[in-house]
Amino acid sequence: MDGGAPDLAGLLERIAADVAPLIGSGTPAEYIPALAEVDPRHFGMAIADLDGNVHGVGDWRVPFSAQSITKVFALALALAEGGDSLWRRVGREPSGNPFNSLVQLEHENGIPRNPFINAGALVVTDRLQTLTGDASSELLEFLRAESGNPDVSFDAEVAASEHEHGDRNAALAHFMASYGNIDNPVPALLDHYFWQCSIAMSCADLARAGLFLARHGLRADGSRLLTRSEAKQVNAVMLTCGTYDAAGEFAYRVGLPGKSGVGGGIVAVVPGRCALAVWSPGLDSRGNSVAGVAALDRFTTLTGLSVF
Amino acid sequence: MDGGAPDLAGLLERIAADVAPLIGSGTPAEYIPALAEVDPRHFGMAIADLDGNVHGVGDWRVPFSAQSITKVFALALALAEGGDSLWRRVGREPSGNPFNSLVQLEHENGIPRNPFINAGALVVTDRLQTLTGDASSELLEFLRAESGNPDVSFDAEVAASEHEHGDRNAALAHFMASYGNIDNPVPALLDHYFWQCSIAMSCADLARAGLFLARHGLRADGSRLLTRSEAKQVNAVMLTCGTYDAAGEFAYRVGLPGKSGVGGGIVAVVPGRCALAVWSPGLDSRGNSVAGVAALDRFTTLTGLSVF
Amino acid sequence: MDGGAPDLAGLLERIAADVAPLIGSGTPAEYIPALAEVDPRHFGMAIADLDGNVHGVGDWRVPFSAQSITKVFALALALAEGGDSLWRRVGREPSGNPFNSLVQLEHENGIPRNPFINAGALVVTDRLQTLTGDASSELLEFLRAESGNPDVSFDAEVAASEHEHGDRNAALAHFMASYGNIDNPVPALLDHYFWQCSIAMSCADLARAGLFLARHGLRADGSRLLTRSEAKQVNAVMLTCGTYDAAGEFAYRVGLPGKSGVGGGIVAVVPGRCALAVWSPGLDSRGNSVAGVAALDRFTTLTGLSVF
Amino acid sequence: MDGGAPDLAGLLERIAADVAPLIGSGTPAEYIPALAEVDPRHFGMAIADLDGNVHGVGDWRVPFSAQSITKVFALALALAEGGDSLWRRVGREPSGNPFNSLVQLEHENGIPRNPFINAGALVVTDRLQTLTGDASSELLEFLRAESGNPDVSFDAEVAASEHEHGDRNAALAHFMASYGNIDNPVPALLDHYFWQCSIAMSCADLARAGLFLARHGLRADGSRLLTRSEAKQVNAVMLTCGTYDAAGEFAYRVGLPGKSGVGGGIVAVVPGRCALAVWSPGLDSRGNSVAGVAALDRFTTLTGLSVF
Repeated sequence: MDGGAPDLAGLLERIAADVAPLIGSGTPAEYIPALAEVDPRHFGMAIADLDGNVHGVGDWRVPFSAQSITKVFALALALAEGGDSLWRRVGREPSGNPFNSLVQLEHENGIPRNPFINAGALVVTDRLQTLTGDASSELLEFLRAESGNPDVSFDAEVAASEHEHGDRNAALAHFMASYGNIDNPVPALLDHYFWQCSIAMSCADLARAGLFLARHGLRADGSRLLTRSEAKQVNAVMLTCGTYDAAGEFAYRVGLPGKSGVGGGIVAVVPGRCALAVWSPGLDSRGNSVAGVAALDRFTTLTGLSVF
Repeated sequence: MDGGAPDLAGLLERIAADVAPLIGSGTPAEYIPALAEVDPRHFGMAIADLDGNVHGVGDWRVPFSAQSITKVFALALALAEGGDSLWRRVGREPSGNPFNSLVQLEHENGIPRNPFINAGALVVTDRLQTLTGDASSELLEFLRAESGNPDVSFDAEVAASEHEHGDRNAALAHFMASYGNIDNPVPALLDHYFWQCSIAMSCADLARAGLFLARHGLRADGSRLLTRSEAKQVNAVMLTCGTYDAAGEFAYRVGLPGKSGVGGGIVAVVPGRCALAVWSPGLDSRGNSVAGVAALDRFTTLTGLSVF
Repeated sequence: MDGGAPDLAGLLERIAADVAPLIGSGTPAEYIPALAEVDPRHFGMAIADLDGNVHGVGDWRVPFSAQSITKVFALALALAEGGDSLWRRVGREPSGNPFNSLVQLEHENGIPRNPFINAGALVVTDRLQTLTGDASSELLEFLRAESGNPDVSFDAEVAASEHEHGDRNAALAHFMASYGNIDNPVPALLDHYFWQCSIAMSCADLARAGLFLARHGLRADGSRLLTRSEAKQVNAVMLTCGTYDAAGEFAYRVGLPGKSGVGGGIVAVVPGRCALAVWSPGLDSRGNSVAGVAALDRFTTLTGLSVF
Repeated sequence: MDGGAPDLAGLLERIAADVAPLIGSGTPAEYIPALAEVDPRHFGMAIADLDGNVHGVGDWRVPFSAQSITKVFALALALAEGGDSLWRRVGREPSGNPFNSLVQLEHENGIPRNPFINAGALVVTDRLQTLTGDASSELLEFLRAESGNPDVSFDAEVAASEHEHGDRNAALAHFMASYGNIDNPVPALLDHYFWQCSIAMSCADLARAGLFLARHGLRADGSRLLTRSEAKQVNAVMLTCGTYDAAGEFAYRVGLPGKSGVGGGIVAVVPGRCALAVWSPGLDSRGNSVAGVAALDRFTTLTGLSVF
């Protein structure tokens, strides 16, 4: 990291070479057609330093569907806008169950375990909607600003596809509403949620957008989004809950706060140092990018930059 | 039973006297205002013999909200119209969980355990809707015909109240739809389901309407609704699944096939002999009428007419 | 039933012919070697009338391992000796889970759902041990007396095999002990339990032994074991809980109180009429004899003698 | 940390003053008498730097029952002796259930979720027993060597008390044995496990003993116990699983790998910097020391030494 561009370029090339045999293994998400059609041979990786300089390898400038990665940005905005009263409505414990489980929700009376399972993300979006009046637009503006890329945008086809296959999320939202844990009308909430999931970004965009977590809360323009303590907290929730029910495995192998999406992307943070993004569509059985996790594993092994 | 009207009248008076101390205990259903406002001091009981003669005591002619009792009639109609392919979409095992649980549904991939939990009843109504094009009207016509009372009708206030507090049922329906186990659009299905639950009937109406199960499948007009074997099967499902998660207790105390509703009513069947209905709004912790279960317990104890 | 021996013999022959194609299908219990070695082609069936006359077909006089069928006799003895305080320590609701599940036990603080799952049967044996000082001998004496067969006995090889593979039952017993729901030392309790499970009886023995439940509580010698009400209650628990997690299916198909064992036997009761026993070692996925359930299904279909 | 002893002493005094109001709140562990009798007003804290220098405050030299804290040392020894084949028998995902739950174990066929829930720790001890022939003595020797305190020892009264109230752990061990996931005889395994839990150490002892995890795997004598990668992995498992079902909360508030025990102790690691131990017997509802967690929270807030 400290050696500047030449070394970083070499590091990224080496990681890309190391994980090349894994690219194309795993299975792209199949629950919506718009994701199932993506070419599984993509691979890209980008690193952004604290000043916003980005280096990349492979398809690091190709936009893909960010999906659940957007949940970490929505969480940060909801905390920034509304403070920690959010935690009365959503927990911060890892879930032992798959990411869209209703079992847990029922055992805990409509309070999702954490903000990164789908139920928890719906609560976060509901809160952001109440706070801002337009949750998905607010999020999009933030991502454009932090990535420095005004072309970051919703993908209408993906959003429509999510909507069409949205019965599971509708079930989650109605179920929480039955416990009084949803403030906005369910159909409107689902619309914002599906738009949020559809946002398309590249590794370069995502690495830059994640820098406020490496900068202990400071945005690209130097203004403060989160207090140092809040930034620590978001990183902690990412580490313990950011990769579905494989968070323990991700911590064990990679040892960094990270948030994955079923589009095959992962954002990771080295507090005080840099932010990374990686993308390859083939997923393992728990919904995380096979080549993406391996690339981050190589990164922390080669650099020693794990938090542990 | 065999001694005719005078003895039956005496039997019903004695049961009413025996359970009088329990009337008003328990708690009326509170999840919708229309039910919470009912006077908890009501008590009525009616017995219909195989010829359709009915005797009663107390408020046996006062209509009340049949609620889940309608599920047994919807099941019979769906079997009569569509045959036993229904059982590919819903099980017939007792549920160890509360009646609207999503936990079980998730563990068993969207197939409800039995047709009397809410999820299973939604599948039955969905099936009836596909078979008839108008599930709730079909059911209403059937109940009018069997009870011999053309005034049996929907209660629009109750249906509206169910709709307003319908997030839990919406969650169940969307969740099963996500597994492909719902054929009709969820909003239309819910409408039919809420209308179905709202049907108001008296003990006299319900006892007569239940006679086809005592007559091994024959309707009031002598036509056959179910085969003898199908009637046996519906009675068996009532015995093992008809009283929420207290079916074992009900079998132990009463020993008859029975179906309860949160309006405080219960229908019970003595195969080959008679059908009974009882009503008192105060519910125990598992959703069954306190005085109603006690009255049926007294009935089988005094007459020896348990199936065991 | 009323036509006497000639008709019964014909009925049994017909049932045996009808189910012949199923004999040998399913899988004998494999968890202990002593059961796995039994020839799966056995089939026997016996009917005992209220006077103790028994008719049979096939291997109806061949002893086999009664296994869980003994649980119904242990329950009756514990109720007869100690009364219904037993129900403070074990429920009577059907279990939605496999018969030796710890999940349910944990959710309900060490109180098993019913006396026929393994955990519940351990509580019953523990109670019988406390009441009599020698639970397994007491049970053996009772079965010899009711069957009229002094040769009914423990199978030492089976008991040893159960003991050797007894970790699951040891886990259940220790787990309930941790909640204070076991009174005797766990190793002694397990010994009695394994002896109890090992008892070998024929269909003839079991049909006769089950008659007290058809006689509403009267033993073979005319003395009363259970009150009429208690006999009704045991029959009810058999119907709702007697065939593992297939009780709903058994009620639906057969419509009689019944108790099965993994040795391939089933005892069933027609209250006020007769008791039946059937045996064939091949089990379905839920632990009930394939040919045995089919034979009882044929019996109630041909005779109309279901309780429904 | 870098300012040396004077500053550290001041820091510890300040933390002790800040958490003073919390000392005595919460509830000491009550499941065994030997723990319930401890005076809840104890509080101690110690910090050990990489060279083994220790500073402390309060009761930092008073031995207490280490309980589950020993699990992290047993894990390190089992990995050091036997390598990562251990992970075929135990997972490394956080558990959403209380620490001694059998529910999870049943859902996952006898493979505990992680090495810090009781079931997982039993597997680790079983492995260590197979590898060394005397698991508890091996562990004691290690802790004496690393703490530099030859007086560290078993507490026979605590071990006897654990044994007497050991039904839950016996259930866990037998249950895993039924899945073939225990190699040694259950009674012998339980003995070693109860001895292990009974080890008494002070904050000074524990902080020193934890230093090998801050030193990326190097023991006090400079020899290597774990590879750098293995040390990272143990720290990761501590962070995600070390504080029962409050790991997310601990990561959020404290942001350090930590392992707690029901004796009221917690060990925490700042990789590359130092190890800490804190003790106060009053526990919160999830089994972690109230004042202990607060003290570590203050430590990372005041020093910024969280991993995030």
